Amino acid sequence: MKQILAIDAGGTKITCAVINENGEFLTEIEKFQTPKKIDELIKLFKDIITKYEKTIDMTAFATAGAVNTDNTKVDSSTPNMPDGYNKLDFSQLSAKPVFVENDANAAAWAEYKTGAAKGENNTIIITIGTGVGGGFIVDGKLLRGKSGRAGEVGSMKINSKGRVCTCGRKDCWESYASGSGLKQTAEFVAAVDDIFKTSIFSSKNPDEISTYDIIEGLNKNDAYSKKVFKIFKQDLITGLINITNIFDPESIIISGGLGKFFDTKELEQAVNSEIVVSPIKVKLAKAGNYSGMIGTALLACQKY
Amino acid sequence: MKQILAIDAGGTKITCAVINENGEFLTEIEKFQTPKKIDELIKLFKDIITKYEKTIDMTAFATAGAVNTDNTKVDSSTPNMPDGYNKLDFSQLSAKPVFVENDANAAAWAEYKTGAAKGENNTIIITIGTGVGGGFIVDGKLLRGKSGRAGEVGSMKINSKGRVCTCGRKDCWESYASGSGLKQTAEFVAAVDDIFKTSIFSSKNPDEISTYDIIEGLNKNDAYSKKVFKIFKQDLITGLINITNIFDPESIIISGGLGKFFDTKELEQAVNSEIVVSPIKVKLAKAGNYSGMIGTALLACQKY
Repeated sequence: MKQILAIDAGGTKITCAVINENGEFLTEIEKFQTPKKIDELIKLFKDIITKYEKTIDMTAFATAGAVNTDNTKVDSSTPNMPDGYNKLDFSQLSAKPVFVENDANAAAWAEYKTGAAKGENNTIIITIGTGVGGGFIVDGKLLRGKSGRAGEVGSMKINSKGRVCTCGRKDCWESYASGSGLKQTAEFVAAVDDIFKTSIFSSKNPDEISTYDIIEGLNKNDAYSKKVFKIFKQDLITGLINITNIFDPESIIISGGLGKFFDTKELEQAVNSEIVVSPIKVKLAKAGNYSGMIGTALLACQKY
Repeated sequence: MKQILAIDAGGTKITCAVINENGEFLTEIEKFQTPKKIDELIKLFKDIITKYEKTIDMTAFATAGAVNTDNTKVDSSTPNMPDGYNKLDFSQLSAKPVFVENDANAAAWAEYKTGAAKGENNTIIITIGTGVGGGFIVDGKLLRGKSGRAGEVGSMKINSKGRVCTCGRKDCWESYASGSGLKQTAEFVAAVDDIFKTSIFSSKNPDEISTYDIIEGLNKNDAYSKKVFKIFKQDLITGLINITNIFDPESIIISGGLGKFFDTKELEQAVNSEIVVSPIKVKLAKAGNYSGMIGTALLACQKY
């Protein structure tokens, strides 16, 4: 059975382990701080590979940024990675095959192959964290587009309320249905709705209310927090309906830090009551924290 | 070379011809009024098939409605076709293979195989007529989804202005970027903007202004018509940006009755200035009026 050295390269840390072609971990997971300079980062990659290279069949990276169609290079800007990261040819790091995939795509693939979407050849993984990300499985293949950048669903404009997104455009789904969107919704409701006056957070400035506050408020049955979350949920549902009508998937898998706070049955009913395609299932992700490593390892096995 | 009897089954007329596997017409195109009763329609299909059955290899239908994953049946409601149409098993109509595909999907395939998107394995065909339709080619395959209904891009919510769509929901792309959307935009601008008073249509009631009027107004340099069309174009662009960010296609092909009134270079620049994926081309459709027949014939060849 093939053995793959999987490396997850993020802006804060580098994580690695050897994984087999069933997605099972064969070694302990090692973690390193992401070096600030490209030379140090390349040295770290080479040190990791040297350590395992004799026993593995290939190396697979899950990385921030858009990956080229050959799965050898990051060809978008990656503000959280060292300067020069997008000049690095990953295939030169080892004498054995090296594969690179975007981390969100890799995590989606893990969910499809080993997680909540197992066996569902048309599925969508939506990651709700600081931003909103998407991974799309179409007929059992990852949707990559002409240049490996497909799936930028967070940039989908869903209304015309004028909220500015972190990308600079207005009214992107991400500016409503992400963690930063939840914070903006909290601030908006606090500013315009008297319900805030009776909230457990009423002593705070509206712009100081965090996503954690709102989650805490939900647990404490705070009416303001419940109202904020209801609006946030409706904005999430709007986007889910849009992509369901376009892809006609079997399921949507909700992932990311905020994912677990949604009632998936409620989302499922809301989506199914408005779509024009046939009903879908909505489920929580299962592949876990290391889904990026698992997914890129399994994708690399397909290629090599 | 294979010969395919292609039949386009629409709510108004039935069109047929024999086509070869290069998409070339081998016979004159025949046209019939669509019968009002299902028995008469089935009889017409059988008569057409009987006429050509000896010399053809298979029959391919392009039809209104969503087609099942076996390409044998329409399994959605089809208000413009006779009652009972979605009970018809097309495979029973001939002793030779019979293939059925949705007409918009078939037309998109023709555009990809023989038209403006030839050779572009990731492309989107947007049809702007009474409604807005989409056909999506992903890695050289038609996007069909789990039940053959994918591509319902007209139902994508793009803003929150509250305009009611023909589907009953609010703010669908179709309610802005289609012929009926253009008419609604014309009515809206006439009601709220003084520019209407100096228009060549100022003697009309706002709800009497047609899409033809606006096109005529453009040709006559009417300021009101230009303003209406500018808003209409911006609403079209919003949706084009959304789907470009999701699919990262090589091109978007603009088709349908209203398609020819757009400057595709202008659309291309507007889309490319806002997307987060790499630049696309925007082109006018080329496959022509009979693209449904050509597309379904070529798809049938792939299957049989």
